[in-house]
Amino acid sequence: MLHFDSDYMEGAHPAVMERLLQTNHESTPGYTTDAYCGKARELIRKACRCPEAEVYFLVGGTQTNEVAVSSVLKPYEGVISADSGHVNQHEAGAIEATGHKVLGLPHKDGKLTADAVGKYMADFLADESAEHMVRPGMVYISHPTEFGTLYSLEELKALSDVCHKYGLPLYMDGARLGYGLAAPDSDLGLEDIASFCDMFYIGGTKVGALFGEALVITRPVALKQMITHIKRQGALLAKGRLLGVQFSTLFTDGLYMKISRHAIRMAGLLTDALKSRGYEFFAPPQTNQIFIVLDNDTLARLKRHATFSVWQKLDANRTSVRFVTSWATEEGDVNALISLL
Amino acid sequence: MLHFDSDYMEGAHPAVMERLLQTNHESTPGYTTDAYCGKARELIRKACRCPEAEVYFLVGGTQTNEVAVSSVLKPYEGVISADSGHVNQHEAGAIEATGHKVLGLPHKDGKLTADAVGKYMADFLADESAEHMVRPGMVYISHPTEFGTLYSLEELKALSDVCHKYGLPLYMDGARLGYGLAAPDSDLGLEDIASFCDMFYIGGTKVGALFGEALVITRPVALKQMITHIKRQGALLAKGRLLGVQFSTLFTDGLYMKISRHAIRMAGLLTDALKSRGYEFFAPPQTNQIFIVLDNDTLARLKRHATFSVWQKLDANRTSVRFVTSWATEEGDVNALISLL
Amino acid sequence: MLHFDSDYMEGAHPAVMERLLQTNHESTPGYTTDAYCGKARELIRKACRCPEAEVYFLVGGTQTNEVAVSSVLKPYEGVISADSGHVNQHEAGAIEATGHKVLGLPHKDGKLTADAVGKYMADFLADESAEHMVRPGMVYISHPTEFGTLYSLEELKALSDVCHKYGLPLYMDGARLGYGLAAPDSDLGLEDIASFCDMFYIGGTKVGALFGEALVITRPVALKQMITHIKRQGALLAKGRLLGVQFSTLFTDGLYMKISRHAIRMAGLLTDALKSRGYEFFAPPQTNQIFIVLDNDTLARLKRHATFSVWQKLDANRTSVRFVTSWATEEGDVNALISLL
Amino acid sequence: MLHFDSDYMEGAHPAVMERLLQTNHESTPGYTTDAYCGKARELIRKACRCPEAEVYFLVGGTQTNEVAVSSVLKPYEGVISADSGHVNQHEAGAIEATGHKVLGLPHKDGKLTADAVGKYMADFLADESAEHMVRPGMVYISHPTEFGTLYSLEELKALSDVCHKYGLPLYMDGARLGYGLAAPDSDLGLEDIASFCDMFYIGGTKVGALFGEALVITRPVALKQMITHIKRQGALLAKGRLLGVQFSTLFTDGLYMKISRHAIRMAGLLTDALKSRGYEFFAPPQTNQIFIVLDNDTLARLKRHATFSVWQKLDANRTSVRFVTSWATEEGDVNALISLL
Repeated sequence: MLHFDSDYMEGAHPAVMERLLQTNHESTPGYTTDAYCGKARELIRKACRCPEAEVYFLVGGTQTNEVAVSSVLKPYEGVISADSGHVNQHEAGAIEATGHKVLGLPHKDGKLTADAVGKYMADFLADESAEHMVRPGMVYISHPTEFGTLYSLEELKALSDVCHKYGLPLYMDGARLGYGLAAPDSDLGLEDIASFCDMFYIGGTKVGALFGEALVITRPVALKQMITHIKRQGALLAKGRLLGVQFSTLFTDGLYMKISRHAIRMAGLLTDALKSRGYEFFAPPQTNQIFIVLDNDTLARLKRHATFSVWQKLDANRTSVRFVTSWATEEGDVNALISLL
Repeated sequence: MLHFDSDYMEGAHPAVMERLLQTNHESTPGYTTDAYCGKARELIRKACRCPEAEVYFLVGGTQTNEVAVSSVLKPYEGVISADSGHVNQHEAGAIEATGHKVLGLPHKDGKLTADAVGKYMADFLADESAEHMVRPGMVYISHPTEFGTLYSLEELKALSDVCHKYGLPLYMDGARLGYGLAAPDSDLGLEDIASFCDMFYIGGTKVGALFGEALVITRPVALKQMITHIKRQGALLAKGRLLGVQFSTLFTDGLYMKISRHAIRMAGLLTDALKSRGYEFFAPPQTNQIFIVLDNDTLARLKRHATFSVWQKLDANRTSVRFVTSWATEEGDVNALISLL
Repeated sequence: MLHFDSDYMEGAHPAVMERLLQTNHESTPGYTTDAYCGKARELIRKACRCPEAEVYFLVGGTQTNEVAVSSVLKPYEGVISADSGHVNQHEAGAIEATGHKVLGLPHKDGKLTADAVGKYMADFLADESAEHMVRPGMVYISHPTEFGTLYSLEELKALSDVCHKYGLPLYMDGARLGYGLAAPDSDLGLEDIASFCDMFYIGGTKVGALFGEALVITRPVALKQMITHIKRQGALLAKGRLLGVQFSTLFTDGLYMKISRHAIRMAGLLTDALKSRGYEFFAPPQTNQIFIVLDNDTLARLKRHATFSVWQKLDANRTSVRFVTSWATEEGDVNALISLL
Repeated sequence: MLHFDSDYMEGAHPAVMERLLQTNHESTPGYTTDAYCGKARELIRKACRCPEAEVYFLVGGTQTNEVAVSSVLKPYEGVISADSGHVNQHEAGAIEATGHKVLGLPHKDGKLTADAVGKYMADFLADESAEHMVRPGMVYISHPTEFGTLYSLEELKALSDVCHKYGLPLYMDGARLGYGLAAPDSDLGLEDIASFCDMFYIGGTKVGALFGEALVITRPVALKQMITHIKRQGALLAKGRLLGVQFSTLFTDGLYMKISRHAIRMAGLLTDALKSRGYEFFAPPQTNQIFIVLDNDTLARLKRHATFSVWQKLDANRTSVRFVTSWATEEGDVNALISLL
């Protein structure tokens, strides 16, 4: 059986495991106050060219989104998101659990446009009953999106501009950030993201870590006592150094980008094969998530040999599905999949 | 200046004021445990032909929706609503404040269809990632809707059937229920509503009371300690008897329906005049809220003589507006408005 | 039967009812944006000698506390209160429903001391694990307290000083504020309260209004969009002018103080009689709530002729009970009660 | 420097690390649906002699408490705890963040007594204003407690009896459960805990795992869709198998108990030395947390050579401190500490 379901099916990159093993018997203070976390913070600030940024380490993506969003919004504020956004669809209401509405706007291949945000804000401010409505308080985007697509530098700048025009902090969910940065299509570097966004997170879980996300805050938009806030959300890891060890490994000698590029190369092989065989793409293939449309026979046949996500039934004979590569994908498996197609 | 902004611009029907005055110096226990509330409960149960119903008295509409919805849902559940629903648009995130998502579905003139609910549930249950999504836990409708439109008996029955098929309690926001019941188009009686819905509220604020809503629960779908739940939401009126006095007055000698019919007759006069003058309706005029489309000149001219709600700018020269009649609307004012049109 | 259970057993003072009746047919905009609310705000600012204060009108006490506290605290902050405080005991967890802990400190006849607050803060700041604890974010007191007792000017000033030393806004629950201001023991005027507290509310429900509380914010400690915040809590009255009419009546020609003094005079008659007959007081009788200790026989006898609150069983033969007078208490009833004692 | 601050200063037991390494490249489905979690569930059910128990895997203690408590309580219910309980003191308001009050009762060496619970419930039910109060909905205990003390079988049975008499599910926080089970004083086995408690968790983070807690539910007291509930709390680990691998290792060949006994033996050496040197104990030393009282000079001297928790300043010259041993404590370090005493 070939596995292309997701990018969190294996453990961690061997270099990460090795460092965890090497440091296993050291005694360190808890709750991300240790020296490994300190070093990882420095490496991340440097990679972002943002020496003043605050960096917090968390365990998973939904948790990070919940912590980040609720650290910015006032009680009566909501977060604008593409309606396809992870916070709006696949986090079981974690944002609402903190008391806030997700204000879903129509998306374009999973992306939110500056125009959509600008129009929503103009309409909101002109509305006679605005005081009776949830006030937009920040904007959430994911990069790559839930459809594997990417913002261009121009698109991100436009979003950032409209957000700042209306006083809305811009937050980027970077669960798969490495795969976005490594994509050949991308003209966005980490320093651009740090410059245009007020907050973002660098995903570890899906990019070589056992688990972990690094939340980066580049402007003073969040609560002051973030550690207490994180503790209250049940999100403060006791052995915080596990996160420090992992992120300092990933951000040493370019490992994070190196393994991201591998996943993108694997995705490229698959994309090329799909294109040459005339498969229909459900979203433009830009990163490590490839969405295609399968007819019933092909779907049934592929299911016998590979695991992947069934996304959406489009009509009686057509279904969209997702194949995902990762740092752990082996070229042999990609070739085996290609020969099945 | 003529006032057609809303149905909560005046105080209470004179009969209600009179009863409040007559009972003003009596000493009664608090928190809706008094005999007036007891009597009002009996009158409402009788009017609904539902002798077993639980009845709770609250102060306002948003508060009642918040109390009702959060008394039914489990933490991870959300409430399905037309995306135009009051809970989704004009309650400042009161539902989200209790931790729950509003799952907005496309509406038809403000109404939710049984088909839309059925399709949403079928898709949800077929979704591979349903466990990571907000689970639909109940259905919210308003009757009349935010556009003044009405469910037919057939439509309500279909909704009720699909809800019960999927184990979803059906809740009706009856902020303007009297005006719905009194509408000539309506084939729905209070007893039908009590039979098809698991919970609903009978609006007082907009239908002759100073303030107050009566929440009726016809099946055991809500929390057991409702008084504690209401207290926790800051919604338990100390001098609860004020609600009992008002509702017992409104439900004695058919007053609630009598004053509702007056508002509907006033709306009918206005509708007829609008039709005969060729005005475009933004939604079918069925109750006491009349939505029409005005060009800029007419809008500017009317604004000099009357107050009303500006709903939505449709294009450069067209705006939808809302005129509302109520128990307090005087025929002379309607005629004066008509002569302005 | 004589009624001394509470100060919310009757309707409103006749002057209030009269104004509600006079204004009943006027058409006004909703949600406390009308001219009556405007006038009431001005009268209250003047009475507080605080021309810059923000004033918001709400319906009840628990609701006002919930709105006020959640408008000040950050998510990870809690509110310090005497452990006997209303927010800690008798609001069914309304503060916790907004996500905040009530940090209960030992009380002295229902009062919180500056020393207790100072010690708590010093300990908190010295605690190695403070970051893992709820951060104190404001201080709640009630005046009169739940035991009918009063802060002196000196005590309030000391509390205010310690609060401001530690950056904690001071909030006073004034459900029975009139009765406190009118007490012969009191050296605190409304302007002192406005000066020492950052927020407080002037109770209407228990002091002559049908319902209603006026939340006064004297320093910029609360959320900016308070109307949206109030709406989200289900606490924004549609016919807001009812609150404006009531408070403008109560604050015209000294009515609020006049009716408060009446209640205090009635309580004084009762207190004198209790003292002369040697009854044991459970708390110092300072305002309109009189707590005494009864043996079983006397308790049983009095219950046959009067209603009052049974507070706490102290031992096999002794129970503390509460008698309450109000603006509506008639001297004849007090005398009748006295002759029963 | 010697480290006795806590039991989460090192990584994981070598056997756990080895299994993580062995399984690192396997592809498994996410979110604790994998076979390793399945096996771990079976091993835990067997160890508890509770074949029907539900078992969920979470990352940390505060998170587990938050998920567990909010899965049982209705909105208006609170959780009874010793006022020294972890949920009441050191979780930054995580329970309140889910909308629930912690009802703190006086403790005895960190333990809650059946009498205290019984008296609280009797008083609550007899209280005239019980409907206005937070309703007790469950009972939280920790074992070992925050003071390292233990419930006896008799004490736990009495608590369980009073809980069930009043319909309150009993929940045990077992962050350090292994150290409790391994204590020579203890007459409680895992099967007793599973029998007397409705829910409890088996701590991994402090007992040999990198991280992880196993929540065991022995009676149907919790929400049905627990995975969705966990996801909503941001607590569902993507690579859930990491938890399955760890717990299946800990529950194979008695490893969990073996490493727990080691920590207890280390604590015993230290306790004997402290006793023989006449040190004052702040709480009875029963498990791996040893609380003693130090004078200023000894405190200053020890701080130069060892790290440990400073608990509470008792008076000008006396401070309580805590020394903690764990699975990772080396006998040489204990001896070095002893020679410092």
